[in-house]
Amino acid sequence: MRTLRVALGERSYPIHVGSGLLGDAGLIAPLLAQKRAAVVTNATVAPLYLGRLSAALAAAGVDVIPVVLPDGEEHKNWQTLNLIFDALIERRAERRTTLIALGGGVVGDMTGFAAATWQRGAPFIQVPTTLLAQVDSSVGGKTAINHPRGKNMIGAFYQPRLVLADLDTLSTLPERELKAGLAEVIKTALIRDASFFGWIEANIGALLSRDVAALEHAVLRCCEIKAEVVAADETEQDLRAILNFGHTFGHAIEAGLGYGHWLHGEAIGAGMVMAADLSRRLGGLDEGTANRITRLIERTGLPIAGPAFTAERYIELMSVDKKVRDGTLQFVVLEGLGKARVRSDAPPATVKNTLSAWATASVPTLPG
Amino acid sequence: MRTLRVALGERSYPIHVGSGLLGDAGLIAPLLAQKRAAVVTNATVAPLYLGRLSAALAAAGVDVIPVVLPDGEEHKNWQTLNLIFDALIERRAERRTTLIALGGGVVGDMTGFAAATWQRGAPFIQVPTTLLAQVDSSVGGKTAINHPRGKNMIGAFYQPRLVLADLDTLSTLPERELKAGLAEVIKTALIRDASFFGWIEANIGALLSRDVAALEHAVLRCCEIKAEVVAADETEQDLRAILNFGHTFGHAIEAGLGYGHWLHGEAIGAGMVMAADLSRRLGGLDEGTANRITRLIERTGLPIAGPAFTAERYIELMSVDKKVRDGTLQFVVLEGLGKARVRSDAPPATVKNTLSAWATASVPTLPG
Repeated sequence: MRTLRVALGERSYPIHVGSGLLGDAGLIAPLLAQKRAAVVTNATVAPLYLGRLSAALAAAGVDVIPVVLPDGEEHKNWQTLNLIFDALIERRAERRTTLIALGGGVVGDMTGFAAATWQRGAPFIQVPTTLLAQVDSSVGGKTAINHPRGKNMIGAFYQPRLVLADLDTLSTLPERELKAGLAEVIKTALIRDASFFGWIEANIGALLSRDVAALEHAVLRCCEIKAEVVAADETEQDLRAILNFGHTFGHAIEAGLGYGHWLHGEAIGAGMVMAADLSRRLGGLDEGTANRITRLIERTGLPIAGPAFTAERYIELMSVDKKVRDGTLQFVVLEGLGKARVRSDAPPATVKNTLSAWATASVPTLPG
Repeated sequence: MRTLRVALGERSYPIHVGSGLLGDAGLIAPLLAQKRAAVVTNATVAPLYLGRLSAALAAAGVDVIPVVLPDGEEHKNWQTLNLIFDALIERRAERRTTLIALGGGVVGDMTGFAAATWQRGAPFIQVPTTLLAQVDSSVGGKTAINHPRGKNMIGAFYQPRLVLADLDTLSTLPERELKAGLAEVIKTALIRDASFFGWIEANIGALLSRDVAALEHAVLRCCEIKAEVVAADETEQDLRAILNFGHTFGHAIEAGLGYGHWLHGEAIGAGMVMAADLSRRLGGLDEGTANRITRLIERTGLPIAGPAFTAERYIELMSVDKKVRDGTLQFVVLEGLGKARVRSDAPPATVKNTLSAWATASVPTLPG
């Protein structure tokens, strides 16, 4: 087991990465303010891992309240969130009852938001079981649900007390989700670490075949980078926005297709190709580097073209995103591998050229 | 105009109390991060004050998004909260768009929670138009909605940038709401300032006849006391809990009757009589002082007896309140006028004696 720390003053917390962590309640139980915890998961993860985690906690004397949600981004809404609150009320959970998210990004975001708002704030622990959640969404304290017309529009910045990334859980991850998680690994390298990008190019085969050492390196390096960015800017005043590379386009793809058609990471795959293309048109990347990025996303098995909505539709979808400021669209662009910044001066005609080039996939299409 | 300050480090903010403040956009406009603001109010307050505030803001160049909610505690729920989000999405509000609550406690709590969670946190301003909101709920950053089975179960601590208490708005307040607001004035004195309690006894007639000087004194003194308590304990780790005097019983009354039957302040009136009685039984108050408290609540025109649910029903209702800790009910009790503390060791038999004595009003009964 390797341990990192997210440095946020009194809200600092550790990230443990390793094997066999789910069955080791000694990592969780000592942190509980009260020997009760709600373990929130979904119908896919529950049969695989809920028993193992619950049994370990129960053996440590913890009273476990299991909450099993339906699986999928299309359930990341008020109705599903209320299932968590209903269970907490039913079992008389208190303000000091800890909420543990066992699952991927959707479970983590919803459980975190439930913890942020249950009795105005209950303790929260992340146990991510997908690659995407281990490398990205479980770290940093962003929690949210979707509005029918905008992704993650309703949420809170709310830090967990602990992130427990058990690499063993990646063995059961569907192929499509593994690839979606790799999209965020590639993103993390692109915005902050050119040599890590080179490492991914060299090891994409090992990652796709779930080589444990390769996965461990990727998870650790992503958590390190994310922890560093989040520590510098917890509530996304400036620097943190670079973590959204590919996300302005990607969120438009998700919202336009309807949540649950493409996985988040798939939309981000195509979104990064678009963002790299835009960076090139704005002079931040040379053509060779932009092509290298597209090539790696393609080798990962992710879509490189977005759905063929019109440019106007993309712009409309992007206009309700959180990354709008004073009516101007903001894009994270690269200025070389490993260097990102936010630009709000991208000319609309240039954005449209990018969309003409890459918004070409037939709709609806389910990759994989 | 008088100005106080809530001292919370970088989240500090001013409270202005005075006349004619609604029409003075110079108090609000300079604070806006962006010249856009959603003014959230309800169907009762909108015809009275929305025009005045909106016109003043518009004259200062602010683009106003009006949001009019149905009136009443029974609407303090997800469905109504979503009306705010729908309007924000519809009008393409951004993360820096300020949410302004124009109304009483329900509008303030819901607008504050919407601000806390809109795009993970938007700026927020309170413009309380009821006595209850001016003396209590608009100050301190507690925001929430109700769960069908528990009051304020879902919410956040989220501080406003400004509280603007325009005393003129109290002139249109229904009699019943004026009295409900006085319940929180009495509570504030009871927990922290014996001489203020004496002042209320001497001036209850002036307060009930809406003497402006008396109301101004009451609002200012309550805001001072609340600001001091909140500054010492923003997220209710210990001291702040004393602000809940009468609320463990009061919330049970509200939940048991169904939200909207009694006003919050009415339930708190009866709840304080019960809490004073419990304090007496536990040795904190002598009989004369407990009677003085009951007498003042009665002179204010508030209910002094709770609905005649069984003791078991009260205890069941209280058990889902936020003030439960490790399964034990917590009560705020007085140890003399102006001194309060939290006790979790009240013997169940003593609590039942209090309920037998004061849970005697026929159900359902609508006072006023």
